[in-house]
Amino acid sequence: MQGARLKELRPAYGFDEVAIVPGEVTVNPDQTNIGFELGNVTLGIPVLASAMDGVVDPDFAIALGGLGGLAVLNLEGVQARYEDAKSVLAEIANTPAGEVTGLLQRVYSEPIKEALLGERVREIKAGGALCAVSVTPQTTKRFAPLVAEAGADVLVVQSTVTTARHISKSYRGLIFSELCQQVPIPVVVGNTVTYATTLELMRTGIAGVLVGVGPGAACTTREVTGVGVPQITATLDCSAARDQYFRETRRYVPIITDGGIRTGGDLCKAFAAGADAVMIGSPFAATREAPGQGYHWGMATPHAALPRGIRINVGVRYSLEQLLFGPTSVNDGTQNLMGALRVCMGMVGALTIKDLHHRAELVVAPSIKTEGKAFQLSGRL
Amino acid sequence: MQGARLKELRPAYGFDEVAIVPGEVTVNPDQTNIGFELGNVTLGIPVLASAMDGVVDPDFAIALGGLGGLAVLNLEGVQARYEDAKSVLAEIANTPAGEVTGLLQRVYSEPIKEALLGERVREIKAGGALCAVSVTPQTTKRFAPLVAEAGADVLVVQSTVTTARHISKSYRGLIFSELCQQVPIPVVVGNTVTYATTLELMRTGIAGVLVGVGPGAACTTREVTGVGVPQITATLDCSAARDQYFRETRRYVPIITDGGIRTGGDLCKAFAAGADAVMIGSPFAATREAPGQGYHWGMATPHAALPRGIRINVGVRYSLEQLLFGPTSVNDGTQNLMGALRVCMGMVGALTIKDLHHRAELVVAPSIKTEGKAFQLSGRL
Amino acid sequence: MQGARLKELRPAYGFDEVAIVPGEVTVNPDQTNIGFELGNVTLGIPVLASAMDGVVDPDFAIALGGLGGLAVLNLEGVQARYEDAKSVLAEIANTPAGEVTGLLQRVYSEPIKEALLGERVREIKAGGALCAVSVTPQTTKRFAPLVAEAGADVLVVQSTVTTARHISKSYRGLIFSELCQQVPIPVVVGNTVTYATTLELMRTGIAGVLVGVGPGAACTTREVTGVGVPQITATLDCSAARDQYFRETRRYVPIITDGGIRTGGDLCKAFAAGADAVMIGSPFAATREAPGQGYHWGMATPHAALPRGIRINVGVRYSLEQLLFGPTSVNDGTQNLMGALRVCMGMVGALTIKDLHHRAELVVAPSIKTEGKAFQLSGRL
Amino acid sequence: MQGARLKELRPAYGFDEVAIVPGEVTVNPDQTNIGFELGNVTLGIPVLASAMDGVVDPDFAIALGGLGGLAVLNLEGVQARYEDAKSVLAEIANTPAGEVTGLLQRVYSEPIKEALLGERVREIKAGGALCAVSVTPQTTKRFAPLVAEAGADVLVVQSTVTTARHISKSYRGLIFSELCQQVPIPVVVGNTVTYATTLELMRTGIAGVLVGVGPGAACTTREVTGVGVPQITATLDCSAARDQYFRETRRYVPIITDGGIRTGGDLCKAFAAGADAVMIGSPFAATREAPGQGYHWGMATPHAALPRGIRINVGVRYSLEQLLFGPTSVNDGTQNLMGALRVCMGMVGALTIKDLHHRAELVVAPSIKTEGKAFQLSGRL
Repeated sequence: MQGARLKELRPAYGFDEVAIVPGEVTVNPDQTNIGFELGNVTLGIPVLASAMDGVVDPDFAIALGGLGGLAVLNLEGVQARYEDAKSVLAEIANTPAGEVTGLLQRVYSEPIKEALLGERVREIKAGGALCAVSVTPQTTKRFAPLVAEAGADVLVVQSTVTTARHISKSYRGLIFSELCQQVPIPVVVGNTVTYATTLELMRTGIAGVLVGVGPGAACTTREVTGVGVPQITATLDCSAARDQYFRETRRYVPIITDGGIRTGGDLCKAFAAGADAVMIGSPFAATREAPGQGYHWGMATPHAALPRGIRINVGVRYSLEQLLFGPTSVNDGTQNLMGALRVCMGMVGALTIKDLHHRAELVVAPSIKTEGKAFQLSGRL
Repeated sequence: MQGARLKELRPAYGFDEVAIVPGEVTVNPDQTNIGFELGNVTLGIPVLASAMDGVVDPDFAIALGGLGGLAVLNLEGVQARYEDAKSVLAEIANTPAGEVTGLLQRVYSEPIKEALLGERVREIKAGGALCAVSVTPQTTKRFAPLVAEAGADVLVVQSTVTTARHISKSYRGLIFSELCQQVPIPVVVGNTVTYATTLELMRTGIAGVLVGVGPGAACTTREVTGVGVPQITATLDCSAARDQYFRETRRYVPIITDGGIRTGGDLCKAFAAGADAVMIGSPFAATREAPGQGYHWGMATPHAALPRGIRINVGVRYSLEQLLFGPTSVNDGTQNLMGALRVCMGMVGALTIKDLHHRAELVVAPSIKTEGKAFQLSGRL
Repeated sequence: MQGARLKELRPAYGFDEVAIVPGEVTVNPDQTNIGFELGNVTLGIPVLASAMDGVVDPDFAIALGGLGGLAVLNLEGVQARYEDAKSVLAEIANTPAGEVTGLLQRVYSEPIKEALLGERVREIKAGGALCAVSVTPQTTKRFAPLVAEAGADVLVVQSTVTTARHISKSYRGLIFSELCQQVPIPVVVGNTVTYATTLELMRTGIAGVLVGVGPGAACTTREVTGVGVPQITATLDCSAARDQYFRETRRYVPIITDGGIRTGGDLCKAFAAGADAVMIGSPFAATREAPGQGYHWGMATPHAALPRGIRINVGVRYSLEQLLFGPTSVNDGTQNLMGALRVCMGMVGALTIKDLHHRAELVVAPSIKTEGKAFQLSGRL
Repeated sequence: MQGARLKELRPAYGFDEVAIVPGEVTVNPDQTNIGFELGNVTLGIPVLASAMDGVVDPDFAIALGGLGGLAVLNLEGVQARYEDAKSVLAEIANTPAGEVTGLLQRVYSEPIKEALLGERVREIKAGGALCAVSVTPQTTKRFAPLVAEAGADVLVVQSTVTTARHISKSYRGLIFSELCQQVPIPVVVGNTVTYATTLELMRTGIAGVLVGVGPGAACTTREVTGVGVPQITATLDCSAARDQYFRETRRYVPIITDGGIRTGGDLCKAFAAGADAVMIGSPFAATREAPGQGYHWGMATPHAALPRGIRINVGVRYSLEQLLFGPTSVNDGTQNLMGALRVCMGMVGALTIKDLHHRAELVVAPSIKTEGKAFQLSGRL
């Protein structure tokens, strides 16, 4: 009968189930290099901000750019629908919970104004930052040329699950190899979680892959549809595809782990599992610089049968700089994410992120809780 | 000593322990086909309603039939014992919790009235719906001819655990091969959870198998007797038997996963594990169309030593149509189950349920909780 | 480096982690035989009551004997130290929690009165029941002849961990082979949890083995000393030793799973894992017949450095007959344990306990909780 | 695709996930020998106190020495910065929680007074106890000769993660082989958790290795940086390195499991996994003899960006003697740790700690909770 079980169930792991093993050599954290290259774009830190309206507006993009990161502006959200997006965001923040779903449905039924797309790009560029924007596969052909022309540096094409092949009667599927030839800037595509799709997407010529479907506790995709792969396994699998693609072509296409990262520990584990960069939402939403005023919501467009997206209150808890670089007096891993990454690299003995990929061993470890626990990191590292 | 361990403990998985991996191709949800064939009967959606008195009465059966599903009427419950079942159900709903066990014992001690059996079948047929009815193995020989003659379309023979061979001194065991020859309608039998029993039952000529004993969190069979197999493993094993039987005979006998499904995610996972259809109780009990008025109880007959069955309050939460097709503003997977199934199939790249069986990979993944989490399903799917 | 890991960590399972798979044949519960043979003693039901002062006194032993079970009287507790044990037990029950440890220390510092040992045996025999008594290894040589002479039917020699070889300077270790020759009644020894020790103990000629050290959630041995093996694994291992010993000698020495059983489900799983009988404490302590008046405490003797044993309140919840045979209106598995066992055997297709050993497959299954869940055991079984 | 997964995820276990299997022979606890040898130093009990300011001051070191253990004095904490350390500790204990981080930052910014280092060593020696002191790798070259000259018996060089090779631009890494030749006393180094690093460290000539990075629930290293290995796996791996080193050189270098031990059960499991001694913080912090007056804090030095260390209140709960040897009336494993160790060894049949290493089998076992459970350790052991 054993031979009759057709489906083998492979174990998959999220951030909470694994831990990083220290290395055989240690390095001083201040000697680590955490830069990130995406096509012809170079970032000081390997962190992108999610394309969500509560997280990124042009001012936030400029602020994050100034600190070495890259914010992705959602080109199908309020910034693309309203000239005065700030007052719309304020209205969302000030509406009682019971009425906010209706408000969001109305807000996102306003048509996208194509003129605003170029304007938002130019605002960010005028602030001196690199500009990344995101669109969905359905609108890519229409919007991509506009934003490239306006000077965007990176184009992100994103939906819940993206593959190189999409079957639809209603529109001709987007061909990524054509897109990469049309637009002169790096194209990042996602999300995916599998080896096969990552490899197939990389073969179309794109510059980066977003990894993450229904990651861990941060999303209800798994509750609603059953679909999702925990992020450590997804990152391990997609990074294996990246390495395979590199062996075949000598072209290195980075992967960006997107979703579910709440702490420095999560972030470090994503890199240890193979991420070249991470995309973060909620932690950025809680910065003073975020446009959401302490609120955060999913970017799903209202749908006749299944309007997806609720507003959650993350609060305003710290500055962007504190989040990324400290100083901090909290010891739960929610601040100074880059400091945590460098300390982790020091303990593993990695001088660069790629070095971390090769040196870090992950073990499956029981979950930990931190309430009321003393923090015992000491001395040398 | 290792060689001395006689029993090997195999891991078994429930809905909460697994997740579905997206596919290498995606399809638009509106191109998926979710029809279901059971013998000569064809349904628009692959969903049956459990044979429980709080869930199915003739009106409910007609309503569900109108939406493409199939309700199974319990022919040993109040509908078979009382002409005026509605007022009995109202009395159950209006009795305080402390007194309801006694009331249920009295209610179910009323003898079954054979004349009512045919009448209930005819009521459903008169409403234009397909009619399915359930009996227990002990009463099958007596009731089956009656209901077939009255025009029922499907006969369900159901007990907690059903096998092709039952040892009893008090009555000659039901022979399913004889039954299938006697009644001219599809016979569905259950419940079972194993490969061997599924194969043996299919060889008797039945039209479908109900899968599920003590499924997951929804039942106390495991607390009381220790017996039960979590539904994903049960479904994987029974679907392997179905496929083996099909290879041997070219006859395709569908399996119906019955019990423990609370959300779209659970439902999608059942199909990904191999279910051809699902049988659902509690979610239907909470519809405005359900006869239980927000209450739901086990159908166990009162027993001198072990009366089994308690009334629980599921509330009246939505219409039948909302449950199955939306629209909805909740994002926890409890509504628009068919929309969720189509979206899942889209993400896996499956055009039909059988396609889903072949394409879906399941992974073992840590459980998730959804309180206070943002919903991030977006865009294309 | 892998080769360097000297200790292999084997997984061990408790009651909550496993479930029983239904069989390929089913039988009517009323055709099952649940008798138990221990040496020349035959019991109607395979259940022993733990040798604890809150559980067993002579009256309880007589009552349980009348229902087919066997109570073990602790010969180093209050029954052996006080002529009027009832008033001592009443005092324990009526002392506030804060003062009870001190009271217990005083109560158990009273010397054992050898004259009482025979008297208690005779009381039980006078009531028409089989009489089983327990002693510790240190006192066995002194007390065993006394109780055998007084007419006891079964002698239990019990400590937390018992092996066939004990190293001590302060006294010559008890030699079980000598003991079995000296006393003309069946000797049951325990507790143990391993294959090797079970086999070695059986080779001394004893009549039964108690299985269980620090079982599951019911004991703090694991918190205090780290020692303990979950009961399913312990039972599987010890039953493998029993079967091996039987193959070698054709003498069948039953094993009795002792500790951690709270529900019918736990009990059924113990049998499915290989137990020939079970020993139960807490469920009996909650009967109206138990001497503890709803209280229950560990039998550890006070110790200068580590007095072990606290009093817990289990309440008075049902009659002994209800606990064992019902009828019951609860559906959480805490009553009608023998009914549950027969239903389980029916679902597995086992006519006897030995048949259950051979037929039952256990799977590792996620834990379940039962609050607010409907009970769906139905019909035929 | 399976071949494409580059990283294998190995399971790792903490104290809560394992249990110790009883042995085939038992011994009386009073015949066990729990002495510990570290280089030329011999201890009556295998327990060290952590180098934390809330745990160890000279008086505590003298008290623990009198009971057979060894306290490690932190030479970079308040004892090394303040002549009148007691009043500084009192100020820390009496400062409200909201202000204590700032106070700690000020307290630890006071420079280390080299004259105090020798003075503290001499205080401990004057009390008749062995003296162990700890320094970080950065200060070792400067402080080690001073403390050796002052008469210290053991030198501990400790940081979060220590390896035999450290890469730094700012200072020349400490060469342990040189250090061992320079100082005439045993050098203990840590912390580490891996086989390879333990072996490499032992080859430098050191006398002992501290095992533990981010152990279990007692530390937020894993939350902040993702780095950490649960203690049972770490101890198993490092003890395998110790045994390998012994096979190669016939020199036995003990390992000391440091961190995460809260109960007798944890402590016993550490030894069963291969520890030669344990280092304990929180349990000692709760003794009346501890200098922290019921408070306890991490020893991390204040850092411009990431001040690590919070004060927690463990309370004053028992005397040092009660903690180590009882008597006790609690049954949760938090007192009489040496009694628990001896009882454990008795149940495993081990006469010495090394014997325990060879005889103890560990199993992976589900976690247990102890609330409201009776304690059933009885009789013979």
